Amino acid sequence: MSYTPQFARRMGGVNPSTIREILKVTSLPDVISFAGGLPAPELFPVDEIAESCRRVLSEAGTQALQYGTTEGFQPLREWVAAEMGRRGVASCDGDQTLVTTGSQQAIDLVGRVLLEPGDVILMENPTYLAAIQAFRGYEARFIAVPTDEDGIVPDALPELVERHRPKFLYTVPTFQNPTGITLTEARRRRLYELALELDLLVFEDDPYGALRYRGEPIPLLKSYDTEGLVIYTSTFSKIVAPGVRLGWVTASPEILAKLIVAKQAVDVHTSGFDQRVVHDYLMTGNPDSHVDRIRAAYGERYGVMHETLSETFPDGFHWTQPDGGMFLWVTCPERMDTAVLLQSAISHKVAFVPGYDFFPGKQERHFMRLNFSNSPPDKIREGIKRLAELCQEHLGT
Amino acid sequence: MSYTPQFARRMGGVNPSTIREILKVTSLPDVISFAGGLPAPELFPVDEIAESCRRVLSEAGTQALQYGTTEGFQPLREWVAAEMGRRGVASCDGDQTLVTTGSQQAIDLVGRVLLEPGDVILMENPTYLAAIQAFRGYEARFIAVPTDEDGIVPDALPELVERHRPKFLYTVPTFQNPTGITLTEARRRRLYELALELDLLVFEDDPYGALRYRGEPIPLLKSYDTEGLVIYTSTFSKIVAPGVRLGWVTASPEILAKLIVAKQAVDVHTSGFDQRVVHDYLMTGNPDSHVDRIRAAYGERYGVMHETLSETFPDGFHWTQPDGGMFLWVTCPERMDTAVLLQSAISHKVAFVPGYDFFPGKQERHFMRLNFSNSPPDKIREGIKRLAELCQEHLGT
Repeated sequence: MSYTPQFARRMGGVNPSTIREILKVTSLPDVISFAGGLPAPELFPVDEIAESCRRVLSEAGTQALQYGTTEGFQPLREWVAAEMGRRGVASCDGDQTLVTTGSQQAIDLVGRVLLEPGDVILMENPTYLAAIQAFRGYEARFIAVPTDEDGIVPDALPELVERHRPKFLYTVPTFQNPTGITLTEARRRRLYELALELDLLVFEDDPYGALRYRGEPIPLLKSYDTEGLVIYTSTFSKIVAPGVRLGWVTASPEILAKLIVAKQAVDVHTSGFDQRVVHDYLMTGNPDSHVDRIRAAYGERYGVMHETLSETFPDGFHWTQPDGGMFLWVTCPERMDTAVLLQSAISHKVAFVPGYDFFPGKQERHFMRLNFSNSPPDKIREGIKRLAELCQEHLGT
Repeated sequence: MSYTPQFARRMGGVNPSTIREILKVTSLPDVISFAGGLPAPELFPVDEIAESCRRVLSEAGTQALQYGTTEGFQPLREWVAAEMGRRGVASCDGDQTLVTTGSQQAIDLVGRVLLEPGDVILMENPTYLAAIQAFRGYEARFIAVPTDEDGIVPDALPELVERHRPKFLYTVPTFQNPTGITLTEARRRRLYELALELDLLVFEDDPYGALRYRGEPIPLLKSYDTEGLVIYTSTFSKIVAPGVRLGWVTASPEILAKLIVAKQAVDVHTSGFDQRVVHDYLMTGNPDSHVDRIRAAYGERYGVMHETLSETFPDGFHWTQPDGGMFLWVTCPERMDTAVLLQSAISHKVAFVPGYDFFPGKQERHFMRLNFSNSPPDKIREGIKRLAELCQEHLGT
């Protein structure tokens, strides 16, 4: 049996299991992990979910366990539409949404229905690792859009679109993964203007938008969209819990119809039981105050990480200062290889993700992504101190 | 924005929403539906699942709601391995299994990692509609293997393999969908011998195997497999409940590794909460007696459907007499078009699935698939009588 070059292309390129391998190590109890993108489990609304399970099964047990429609549980779709309204997107209704098995599935489905081998995607550089993986599965090519501390530089788009004829722009404009950077409001407006002019489809991936711990909310790219040019995905993983694998996508009716047909062949529908339980929780469990607690906790953790980095890290290191989300991005001195650093970090029981896998093109070696949502403040202090010592040692050698 | 010929090929061909459209009609309360492939919801173990939810959330709530590994919840993988043993497959261990979002996802993932555009798949004719859809997504071509009332004719394989160089044989050997036919034991042995000789990969889809209501179990194709030539998938949809979307796949380590990498990009992992709940149910909820109840009920329903067909259907109609599963396959007189019949059936509040979508090649018009698991006996009697009258009328015109 042979495995074809096409398969190798589909699966290759990305060192697929970097994060997975790190997660295996970091599941050991005494490792302090800034790897992964795990929410804080101690904040999960376990009791409320238990109550919702009880209610769903006693009130609609057989329907909850039966097959459902591909589009999703209708009341949850309606909730999503209302949530889109709260996020500033006028005139979204339930029928314009599709419930997915996490927003990762939305990313994969968009690739599946839009991409042909060799198609170009414009992306931030670095960008979300698992989006690179998913789009590589469809043999896409990636072109980096120039970015700075304010996100994508919109005025770079006309030339890139002219030269590369991209199928779409993929962007995580708010508290980006891996950098934590947020695209400014002025740039969002300009980006949408240009997208209209250039007939450029925009895929806005917004897993973290609700996790703002300072500053004022900035409009979604989708909120400007009058022409069905923006595909938007978000997730319940960060505002409820990730284990239930629930996300959603909203797009023009034309694209949404294709996503639904594709999803039908892929997994028929997302767990109807989980959809009903999460819907019940959203209606009864006070999710807003839950998100407030998450934001307060992550804000504090971010503060502790930033402070400890400032106190302990040697000169020559710089890091982003996000207003929300779950990650910081550290730029190390150029002579440092963070893959090598990771090896000694793991033996000292602290972990992070080396930056190179987040680059769709040339894989820069001197970056690391630090997650601050998954460890309590004292662990963050301790872990950053250990990491600072190791950085010092590495620079000394 | 343009949608490409490749997309049309991916999604086209199959009338994608036949079943979905039928399901919309049949969700109306007073329609008797033999369409769909729905289990009997009144048999779902709702109370046991509720008890398992309570236990999982009180004993391991935060882990159950956190991200998990792509491979699946390890204790559920171990249960699957033990179940494979009970189904006659020696030496399967937990690490040789992957938990999927229903067995539909296993079908899609196998397509994703093995198929390139133009690749040939050997299939029964007719075969499972959603497998055709999934494999069409990878631009496969389909070649029918001759079949009769004992399933695939193995001795047809050498010539087909020689001529078409298929990537694999896809088969539902037990209580097939749509026909209900079971491949005999002698043919299974011969099929595996030939697969070995021809180096032919076999994809055994076994959603219904546990639902036998008469006769003795027949070995799985996978049970002969000493060389990693058989990929096997099954599901919890029929033995527990479909709403939780849980299935599994087992394959050679080489193929399984590729399926896991692909799944990571597709949805990261299947709901860890559902995996834990179903595992808890399997360990505590007496699932064997639950399956016994399902088999008894479906056996009775099959009997009522067969009897009523015999009593009421005009001459010239024939149907299969399966020993298990959820479907009968009716061969109508050749001049009948079951798509036309369906229109008047729906207006008389009875539904079925016309056979044509189940044919990967030429779509024969004079077949229908009848599901007998989802309606109680009195509804089956009533629905079949209505259908018999409509058939009579159609033949009269």
